[in-house]
Amino acid sequence: MSVLESLNWRYATKRMTGERVSAEKVNAILEAARLAPTASGLQPFVILSISDRGLLEKIKPIANNQPQITEGSHVLVFAAWDDITAGHISQVFDLVTRERSLAADALDSYKSRLAGYFEGMSKDERFNIAARQTYIAFGVAIVAAAEQAVDATPMEGFRPEALDELLGLREKGLRSVCLLTLGYRDAANDWLAGQKKVRRPIGELVIEM
Amino acid sequence: MSVLESLNWRYATKRMTGERVSAEKVNAILEAARLAPTASGLQPFVILSISDRGLLEKIKPIANNQPQITEGSHVLVFAAWDDITAGHISQVFDLVTRERSLAADALDSYKSRLAGYFEGMSKDERFNIAARQTYIAFGVAIVAAAEQAVDATPMEGFRPEALDELLGLREKGLRSVCLLTLGYRDAANDWLAGQKKVRRPIGELVIEM
Repeated sequence: MSVLESLNWRYATKRMTGERVSAEKVNAILEAARLAPTASGLQPFVILSISDRGLLEKIKPIANNQPQITEGSHVLVFAAWDDITAGHISQVFDLVTRERSLAADALDSYKSRLAGYFEGMSKDERFNIAARQTYIAFGVAIVAAAEQAVDATPMEGFRPEALDELLGLREKGLRSVCLLTLGYRDAANDWLAGQKKVRRPIGELVIEM
Repeated sequence: MSVLESLNWRYATKRMTGERVSAEKVNAILEAARLAPTASGLQPFVILSISDRGLLEKIKPIANNQPQITEGSHVLVFAAWDDITAGHISQVFDLVTRERSLAADALDSYKSRLAGYFEGMSKDERFNIAARQTYIAFGVAIVAAAEQAVDATPMEGFRPEALDELLGLREKGLRSVCLLTLGYRDAANDWLAGQKKVRRPIGELVIEM
């Protein structure tokens, strides 16, 4: 499917059949998220790919008891760094230096400029930047799931603090920001299946100049 | 190209040839952004599609004089709502009600629950939510551009206040959050063309549970 076909095929699936999504398809979706671009290549997030049924049962009440949490096959938890530190930046630039076989100090001035830029912000502002980058990968993962004919429900209707507590994210320097449930639509029981997709008209959403 | 092929083909193009991108391709990219999902279907953003050369010359110094601004064909300015108001929510739900031929009051309880949810936040928090949704569409547009074999440079390196001022965005209740320059790579003059794509390894980015 093309990107437009995929986007027209997908919808925010409300009921799923319980059928498992193959590891191959889940991996393709995760790989797409991994390849998503982020500011300065920081990739300031982690994705938790959860298929353990007991754990999903515990997540469900934290996510307003949405049935897809347990009717789906996997829940991807997109968790942003709770801060962007000099240590984070060094790790990323060390990786680029190694992978591109650059001189050890080739990126030093860019690295310190970037560290200085983030130092001038509050921790909350840095977290917000990390969260925004996470949403780029989230958008990419949504397209990738549809291309695989895997249904996916993007979710923000959950209590991030409770989920962070359950998954031990704060100790890892992470905060959950959005969820993507992967599975297969139960069209017979899903009120939203077959409903017309509604989007603001292009003439309202786009201004040409 | 598949999503993974597209993501591997693309890179943050630093130099462009000046060749124009056809209206058909630009429209496909904008349509993909339009179809991107957003929380409660709010689509809390506008995309300015700018190809006026004089205007692009004025944007360039606001964006650190990055050459792609004028070597590219179009700059898409993703501008989030600076607030999410009861009026915004009503407009969106009125559209859904019309498009799905629902009873006039069918969505009233959802609508007032949502309005109440946003009223409990500060304006800054509402803007941050709008900005995150904008990044979903941004991610989708990046994939769509690559699928069209259009090079695209995602940019955050610009002064949002100055760009808002130039484009009169604040009067429209909008704030610029990210840019996507569309054009064609000038591989001979782009130091980044042909460099290895570097991403954190999947085992570091993804935690399976």
